[in-house]
Amino acid sequence: MIDQLVQGIKKTSAPICVGLDPQMSFIPDTIKVRVFNEYGETLEAAGEILWQFNKAIIDAVCDLIPAVKPQVAMYEQFGIPGLQAFWKTIDYCKSKNLIVIGDVKRGDIGSTSAAYAAAHLGRVMAGDREYAAFDEDFCTVNPYLGTDGVQPFLKVCDDEDKGIFILVKTSNPSSGEFQDQLVLVPSGEADAAERLRLAEDREMTLRRLVKDMDKEEQKKFGFTLRPLYELVGEKVAEWASNPRLIGESGYSEVGAVVGATYPEMGKTLRKIMPKSFILVPGYGAQGGTGDDLVPFFNKDGLGAIVNSSRGIIAAYKKEEYAEKFGEDGFADAARAAVKDMKKDIHQALEKG
Amino acid sequence: MIDQLVQGIKKTSAPICVGLDPQMSFIPDTIKVRVFNEYGETLEAAGEILWQFNKAIIDAVCDLIPAVKPQVAMYEQFGIPGLQAFWKTIDYCKSKNLIVIGDVKRGDIGSTSAAYAAAHLGRVMAGDREYAAFDEDFCTVNPYLGTDGVQPFLKVCDDEDKGIFILVKTSNPSSGEFQDQLVLVPSGEADAAERLRLAEDREMTLRRLVKDMDKEEQKKFGFTLRPLYELVGEKVAEWASNPRLIGESGYSEVGAVVGATYPEMGKTLRKIMPKSFILVPGYGAQGGTGDDLVPFFNKDGLGAIVNSSRGIIAAYKKEEYAEKFGEDGFADAARAAVKDMKKDIHQALEKG
Repeated sequence: MIDQLVQGIKKTSAPICVGLDPQMSFIPDTIKVRVFNEYGETLEAAGEILWQFNKAIIDAVCDLIPAVKPQVAMYEQFGIPGLQAFWKTIDYCKSKNLIVIGDVKRGDIGSTSAAYAAAHLGRVMAGDREYAAFDEDFCTVNPYLGTDGVQPFLKVCDDEDKGIFILVKTSNPSSGEFQDQLVLVPSGEADAAERLRLAEDREMTLRRLVKDMDKEEQKKFGFTLRPLYELVGEKVAEWASNPRLIGESGYSEVGAVVGATYPEMGKTLRKIMPKSFILVPGYGAQGGTGDDLVPFFNKDGLGAIVNSSRGIIAAYKKEEYAEKFGEDGFADAARAAVKDMKKDIHQALEKG
Repeated sequence: MIDQLVQGIKKTSAPICVGLDPQMSFIPDTIKVRVFNEYGETLEAAGEILWQFNKAIIDAVCDLIPAVKPQVAMYEQFGIPGLQAFWKTIDYCKSKNLIVIGDVKRGDIGSTSAAYAAAHLGRVMAGDREYAAFDEDFCTVNPYLGTDGVQPFLKVCDDEDKGIFILVKTSNPSSGEFQDQLVLVPSGEADAAERLRLAEDREMTLRRLVKDMDKEEQKKFGFTLRPLYELVGEKVAEWASNPRLIGESGYSEVGAVVGATYPEMGKTLRKIMPKSFILVPGYGAQGGTGDDLVPFFNKDGLGAIVNSSRGIIAAYKKEEYAEKFGEDGFADAARAAVKDMKKDIHQALEKG
């Protein structure tokens, strides 16, 4: 699946993914009034509204981009009818040759992760018949439970030619609370006791470790202090390096999520995970700029796909598009916003 | 909602939660054959099978226990019909006065977590009408994204008298990969530079920090080395201490998940989170024993609720119940297994 994503990016020259996260407040009143009149003020109506809005957006942008990223929470909150709209959206995007990244952030202990992997990327059996439930092309995965929670997703990627993006450093303001914690990591070949002896012999005080010692020197001492997200990134790189998961493009089915809001960390993580595509949220509404995106890309202009949700699907509410397109022109405004985003990224990559 | 859970535990003398995680392989052939004959081999049939199985289990055990914990992944894998069975199960459990803990492990950036919180604990608007989508009483939450991902759940707990259990130390074998990492934590009042100076002045080598220094001494130096799960536990304690979220029982709507498979860590975390109930998975099939559960409880016999899924709902497959109950007696076997689990826990608590 990663090869299809790479082809799509090359074909459209757009390393862009449109986030289909339709909050009700983003949706024009004309749609809402029409559907509520027809269906009553029901959850079914809410689902239908999400679907009609998405369809118009998809029709307007599908030739410009390789991929979309529906955020399941926005559908799940409307219960079964909401999830029907999620399913219908996925199905329609695929009929338009868009790659679908289900932003589901699932993750659990092994047997349960296997069920999530089946739900979103794989198949289930009903008696002797096989079905795919939601059947996204990629999905996002939460790594907090460790390898045995991720393994079932890796297996499905292999079996079904699908891909995943694992949360490494998220775009939100509090992401550092746990993800940036400095972890004392043993390094090198020595065992724990030997490492401690070495550290003591060389009078490695904490000040030196934290402040004055560069990474190479830390390694010699047998310990390094590293933020948690780097460790997670290294695990991603390990999972991604399985030759069965590497496509003809040289990229792996196992990618990572790193927020545009943390470009310095993106630079480090780009190096740590050479085979992984990085899904970059946080551009636009969350504060990430075109220039911030440069470190996430490789020199070939590949290796990253940038998501924008609100900035595209609710573009018609922004001053720069509002006057030209108005509320009824929300889909055309989304199209214009995709073109502007593409220009912004190309300019930044040419400069950077 | 925490007060209702405490009342339920007192009334049944059972700090027990039955995990409704019906894997197809747990379900007797008689149910599967009957339903597949009626509905064909469809996802609808799969959903109906989960539901019929659950209903029989619920009817058999509902007077013995205060709470159930349906694992959404097991339903989600069957798509919309599976999620309909999840909804129906929740609704039926509530009609039987069981408290429902939705094991959904959701967590995302702020605005998205708000949608998840609405989906599982809160309400949404369709026009001017309010609906509750899945309407569990509690749900589980993944903390990897930090405070702004948890905050929307806390708000819904306050608004709707609901509760959450936040993943702190999970029961699976790989849980230590990230959760046990030793984190260098500044402590005390001094600022970072001052702490480093102090550490250097006292020749605090790493060996001393890691091996020879006890926690009190570490604190004096301005740094401690702590596993990540303790940090997460401390955040849980902070979130839980909001007086608006503390019930008449003295416990908070904000609880934690800590696996029975790690009783030593449970002991530490029990102290770190005095106001939080601990939801303890991993008993039985995953290897946790009655004795392992003791450290999770407070002296009043409260403070923890122990989950068993496979050990109860698939009890009829275990030697000790198979002969007596047979496949058709799966619900009675579940009832017997609940009674045995209750006895096991009471014996352990009396000893411990």
